[in-house]
Amino acid sequence: MKYLGLMATLGVSISLFGCASNKTETGPMTIAKQGSFFVGGKNIKSNSVSNLPIYSSSGTIAVDQVYVHYQKPTNAKNTSVVLIHGCCLTGKTWESTPDGRMGWDELFVRNGFSTYVVDQASRGRSAVDTSTLIAVKSGRLPSKQLPMVNNVSQEDAWEVFRFGPKYPEVYPGMQFPLDAQAEFWKQMVPDWIRALPTPTPTVPALSELAQKINGAVLISHSQSGIFPFQTAKLNPAGIRAIVSIEPGACPAADEDLSYLKGIPVLVLWGDYVNKSPRWEPRLKACKEFVEAANKAGIKAQNVMLSDLGMTGASHMLMQDKNSILIGKWLIGWINQNVKG
Amino acid sequence: MKYLGLMATLGVSISLFGCASNKTETGPMTIAKQGSFFVGGKNIKSNSVSNLPIYSSSGTIAVDQVYVHYQKPTNAKNTSVVLIHGCCLTGKTWESTPDGRMGWDELFVRNGFSTYVVDQASRGRSAVDTSTLIAVKSGRLPSKQLPMVNNVSQEDAWEVFRFGPKYPEVYPGMQFPLDAQAEFWKQMVPDWIRALPTPTPTVPALSELAQKINGAVLISHSQSGIFPFQTAKLNPAGIRAIVSIEPGACPAADEDLSYLKGIPVLVLWGDYVNKSPRWEPRLKACKEFVEAANKAGIKAQNVMLSDLGMTGASHMLMQDKNSILIGKWLIGWINQNVKG
Repeated sequence: MKYLGLMATLGVSISLFGCASNKTETGPMTIAKQGSFFVGGKNIKSNSVSNLPIYSSSGTIAVDQVYVHYQKPTNAKNTSVVLIHGCCLTGKTWESTPDGRMGWDELFVRNGFSTYVVDQASRGRSAVDTSTLIAVKSGRLPSKQLPMVNNVSQEDAWEVFRFGPKYPEVYPGMQFPLDAQAEFWKQMVPDWIRALPTPTPTVPALSELAQKINGAVLISHSQSGIFPFQTAKLNPAGIRAIVSIEPGACPAADEDLSYLKGIPVLVLWGDYVNKSPRWEPRLKACKEFVEAANKAGIKAQNVMLSDLGMTGASHMLMQDKNSILIGKWLIGWINQNVKG
Repeated sequence: MKYLGLMATLGVSISLFGCASNKTETGPMTIAKQGSFFVGGKNIKSNSVSNLPIYSSSGTIAVDQVYVHYQKPTNAKNTSVVLIHGCCLTGKTWESTPDGRMGWDELFVRNGFSTYVVDQASRGRSAVDTSTLIAVKSGRLPSKQLPMVNNVSQEDAWEVFRFGPKYPEVYPGMQFPLDAQAEFWKQMVPDWIRALPTPTPTVPALSELAQKINGAVLISHSQSGIFPFQTAKLNPAGIRAIVSIEPGACPAADEDLSYLKGIPVLVLWGDYVNKSPRWEPRLKACKEFVEAANKAGIKAQNVMLSDLGMTGASHMLMQDKNSILIGKWLIGWINQNVKG
């Protein structure tokens, strides 16, 4: 056993098996640290906390905070990623796919990135302020003052997420795992964003997060597509790159884009966009933004996955059957475009 | 290097360093598998999905599902644990403490348990059905039909969570990390349970989960304290033990408790209970339940942490400064009382 003792003394690490390597995408993985915390948020005095006699009707509650769950791999890269979900969804978007495969949260960790998954303000584990609802219930406010809460039905979402042109038609070659759609629909939650100011409190919270974790690539999706840009405009500190996946909106092409100087930008799209009256104008506007950004000296790219040979991608491409392939391409883009 | 080769051939696992051992409570840890999924839930047709002109006002939405996040350690024990949060909180309860220490979710994983953390139905990442709210907003239902949504103010929660007799007074020796209270208050969310039937859809979902994962200890807290009992009453399959931490209610002492046959039960309490007009009657009723259960041949225990020398525990004892000590005692109880 002399060799073992000697190697231990010399600081040589040996692992035969029973010891995880994160380099593979299956099998055990090693986490250096994990946990959760909140960014943003503030205490307010509400006079409509509760209508129950056993609790005070008024008092202090925390609102606008953003829940963050994170995992750091051993030997983490210097650059972290923040994963920001879209409309009517939560951070669950990035976890296990509906058909039970590894989500991008784990893919990034296995590829050396400390990974932070958020629930937008007023979504998931980030508290909604229900004061107005409680005040209307008790008759102190008229019902028209209720917040504009929105759900997207499965029938509508089918088209929004581009599973097909219209429920239940399917685009040929479409990659979303529709066999597991029942599990997917359970991911959907009500959207309270219209009860919040613009930009949403998620934006300053993302800025706080990017700085707190000493630099991050902000990866957004759909409704949150614009958030990283809004965050950079507020404060570029800590934003190493912006990845906007199928954004609901890009910055306007005619605005001053200088706040993006030095921040690489990727706008990434799935397939069938030109078949969707909802999405085609958004793509067009994003292409104009990317062109304007490049003219302003910003390194911005608009990428169609189909142009890379990855055809059939839905709007929920991080959950598509080839999500790992797409995710690995994105990791390659980050490794190539982001310093550190 | 002959020894290494021989040992590899023999299937001997060697790890010197750079390789995680889950036996310590710090340093890297190895996860065999992790992810998230839903249990329970059903599709309903709602005629109040949205008031926005860009979406259909009616359609199909999924309701009553329960979000589950899990981690399985390498060499997991045969028995899993399910962690169920209480009122106005989410699964975050069991993750990192407000002062940034390891949560019980990770403590259990590091001690060999596959660990499942849920968000109750209509809480956190488990969607709320907002149909009534949307119908009232549009004037199709009267405001009195709004759901009874409830928050607990920080001032009230102070007393409910027994940080002290009354905000901002503190019980002497109380162990909750009050320096990090701002982070803790951000964990609180509105409670929609009064919009749900009794028992909550969380209960059948827990039954589905316990069976799906082939046996689990159901560990509940406060509002959810009664859920594991309701689950066992519905179907004892897969319930290896019930741990009810500071339950809002225990089963009635005079009911037929035979559905608990063969299921070890622990009811666990923090400190200062006899100083709380809210909690003292609940403790009394649980003691009566435990007595009745034992008479009925059920192995049930009522344990006060202060009787074990762990004084100063708050209602949020899984986040107290000595939460790891308490958690380890609980792990010892499970190892001793649960087969497999």
